[in-house]
This record gives sequence, structure tokens and C-alpha cells, in this order.
Amino acid sequence: MTDPAPARTGALDSTIIVLVEPQDPINIGNTIRAMKNMGLSRLRLVRPANADGAAVRISAPKADDIISNMETFDSVDEALADCVLVVAMTARGRRHRRLALRPPEAAELLVERSSQGPVAVVFGREDSGLPNEVVDAAHRVCTIGTRPDYSSLNLGQAVLVICYELFALAGVPEPLKGPQRTHPAATVAELDGTLGQMQETLQTIGFFKSGHPGAIPGTLRQILLRADLDRREASLLRGIFVEVLAYARRASQGAKRS
Amino acid sequence: MTDPAPARTGALDSTIIVLVEPQDPINIGNTIRAMKNMGLSRLRLVRPANADGAAVRISAPKADDIISNMETFDSVDEALADCVLVVAMTARGRRHRRLALRPPEAAELLVERSSQGPVAVVFGREDSGLPNEVVDAAHRVCTIGTRPDYSSLNLGQAVLVICYELFALAGVPEPLKGPQRTHPAATVAELDGTLGQMQETLQTIGFFKSGHPGAIPGTLRQILLRADLDRREASLLRGIFVEVLAYARRASQGAKRS
Repeated sequence: MTDPAPARTGALDSTIIVLVEPQDPINIGNTIRAMKNMGLSRLRLVRPANADGAAVRISAPKADDIISNMETFDSVDEALADCVLVVAMTARGRRHRRLALRPPEAAELLVERSSQGPVAVVFGREDSGLPNEVVDAAHRVCTIGTRPDYSSLNLGQAVLVICYELFALAGVPEPLKGPQRTHPAATVAELDGTLGQMQETLQTIGFFKSGHPGAIPGTLRQILLRADLDRREASLLRGIFVEVLAYARRASQGAKRS
Repeated sequence: MTDPAPARTGALDSTIIVLVEPQDPINIGNTIRAMKNMGLSRLRLVRPANADGAAVRISAPKADDIISNMETFDSVDEALADCVLVVAMTARGRRHRRLALRPPEAAELLVERSSQGPVAVVFGREDSGLPNEVVDAAHRVCTIGTRPDYSSLNLGQAVLVICYELFALAGVPEPLKGPQRTHPAATVAELDGTLGQMQETLQTIGFFKSGHPGAIPGTLRQILLRADLDRREASLLRGIFVEVLAYARRASQGAKRS
């Protein structure tokens, strides 16, 4: 498989994930894995407690490209100096009276602004989040909705949510289907043929107690429609009811003869 | 803080997260933390390698309610027996020709169907995902979009995406604003007053080189609109330009006198 086409993934290439004072290299690794899952590649660390490659690699398999390119800074200002948009992640509105963006809104803004230069999403340390001055200095703040009484997200999980929303907007996902259908979808006429056969057979074997099918054919139609049949499957079902009918007629003949 | 109102969170109470053969208790803990962040509470484990409470607690602080209620099963069938909808998570379409749901679509279906009974989202083991027979037996499959060449998500992160989408639909998020504004938003008239003052001052100090303001007032208006000013801030800006004007006039008087 090849990488996603550059034309649609410029926003992912231009989005920088910034971790401020991450304390646990496992979380740096989880961040890298989430980034790589979602097609991001640029990671900046500000004063990490431990960003040792071996420790980071444990939770970020096959991601040496991101690990070897990650940058480390002494201050948040330096890490963000070249960015045209900074989104600060906060678990709570805190004292900020600004309206926080939800992740899908933040992703939209990041994608839009990324055409003008690097954009950054900044995450604070595991235990205390971002310092107020970093939040105040950001262009926008973003909050992932949670229960009010349990709002602290795991760092790697919070990073994934943002990367996931970015990828949903700007990425090229794997096609949703498995192998292509080997048979084309059943036409309405084929479906009608199958349903007609079912009804005839059911009528013949006395399935409709009152002699009238009532609502049953409509229900069967709904079931088959929902099942999204292909031609072969419609034909299979029809064949089953053809055979049931033939069997019923043979049995009935036998009964008459005996 | 109190728990979210039950009326809107029934879907979260009715959604069961099922982990099949999780190998690492840290991932069980990350699952529990993600669930608790997003208001889910029901976890089922099928043949976990290690579900020891102490090991799980490391990555799931303050979540003993979920930990003490989690259930362990010997088979997937037993774990899903009471569920009216089963969504199987797969990294790839694999051999399934069924159309996979995206997480927001899966969340919608889960919320809808949860009014009829327990619904389940099933995740496979870290290294190999779900067995094909489990995927085949599910009502629906769901795939989180990723880069095609790096599609294996961390288990806890994958769980969070589903819980996040469920919460976005059915949860009661923390209000997005921080403390209420201490001052009401500026009215259009107040904004006009501020802009008028700015223009008068700029005109007086000769800021408009050609003598005509041109597009500058419009630009200033756009900036102030985007800034979402409150009354106090609008008044502050106006005051600044009042003072600049007064200063300019005093300076001009002084120049004339000297």
C-alpha cells in the first residue's frame, strides 16, 4: 500500500502535535502510534521527563520515522514560534471565559488554517494539564466532552481523538468494504421474484392460517430489503422456496395416492 | 457534581463494552478509564490473560465502581447472549463483504437500539483482533478510519473513540464555557461607538496617509467582531483611543504654543 495522496493530506503534514512536559514515555509512544494511525508525522516535546527512544518505542511499534524526527524544546514559546494557529487542549473551561471548541470544530479550523503554515495542537502534562499562560496564549481552546465528574483523559487517548477527527476530515481512509462483491446486488425484480415465490409456497403449504397472508409479505419484504441481497443470494432463497413447494406437492400427491 | 441525568444517559447505561482475550491489564485499565470519562459503566471480559484488579487499577484511577462490576466469561457467546445488537470492531474489512459502519454511524445505531435492551461493542485482542467467527456473528461491523498501511489502533484508544462518539450523542457534556462572563457582551451600538472613536482618533493623528480611511475601518470592525468583546473591553478600547486623541490634541496645542 502506498501513503495517502499528498493533495488531500497536506493538512495532516502541517499539523504539529505538541506535548508539554509529558511525564511517561509510554504516553509519548501512544501519541506517536495515534499520530501514525491517522497520518500525522510532526511531534514536538517541551521539557519531556523522559523521551528516550527505547522507552518510547515500547508503545509505538514501527514508527521510527516519527520518533527520529521528533523535536525537543526548552520552552512552549520556542515550540510554537512558527505556527499560524495554536489550539490548546483543556479538560475544563477553567477560568477561561472563551468558548471552547469541540474536537470536530477544532479539526475543521486546523485543516482550514493549515494551508497558511504549520498549525499546532498542544497537550499538557498527565497530572496537571497545560499551564494557564499557555492556554491564554493560544488562538483557541478545545475541550473533549466528558462526564463532568471524571474529565481527565489519558494523554494518548486525548491525542487520538484529535488525530481521529483530523483524519476524518483530511485523511484518506481505508476503503470501508472488504473484497468486492463477487455478485451484483439483486434488482427489485429479482427481489420481487423471490418474494413472490415465498408467498406462493407459504400459501400452498397452508402457512397463512386464515388463508390470507395479511401483513406477512410486507414483513418479509422488509427483511430482504434490509439484508441487502446480492443476485446469487436472492436466487438461493427463491430456489429454497421452489424446492419446498415441489416437495410439498410431491408429498401431497403421495398422500392422495395412498 | 452529580451524575448526568438518567433520562438522557440510558443509552450509555445500556451499552456494554466487551474485550475478547485482552492480553495486557493496562489496556483493560485504559478501557475502563475511557468508559468512565464518557459515562459508560458495563464491561465484560472474555478469557482475559490477566484481569487482576491491582494491575487494572494502575491505568484506571478512581474507577473501582466499574472494576468491581466487570464480568468475566469463558466464551463470546455467553458474553453476548442477552444483547439485542452486537457491533464488532475490525481494523479491516477483511474478507467480510459487509459495509463497515464508521464510529459515528455505529454510535447512532447503538443509541437507537439501546432502548430495546443491552447493546454491545466487541473488541478483539491486541495482536490479532477478533476471530472471523465473532465478526461474522455480529449484527454490524465497525471500522475506525486509519492510514491503510498502519491500521492497528491501540486497544484503549480504539475503545475511547467509540465511547467518545457515544457520549457525543447520548451524554451530558460539561458545559463548554468556563465561569460566566462577568460583563455582558458588547452591543452593536457599543461596538460602533468604539469603532467611531478609533476612526476619529486615527483621522486626527494623521494615520490615514491619503486623508481617507479607505478599507481600514472595515478591517477594524471585522477584528473587533471576531474578538467577541464584552462591554468592559469595548469600553476599554474606546477609552484608549479617547486618551490617544486627548494626548494628540495636547501635544498639538503644545506645538502651536512653542
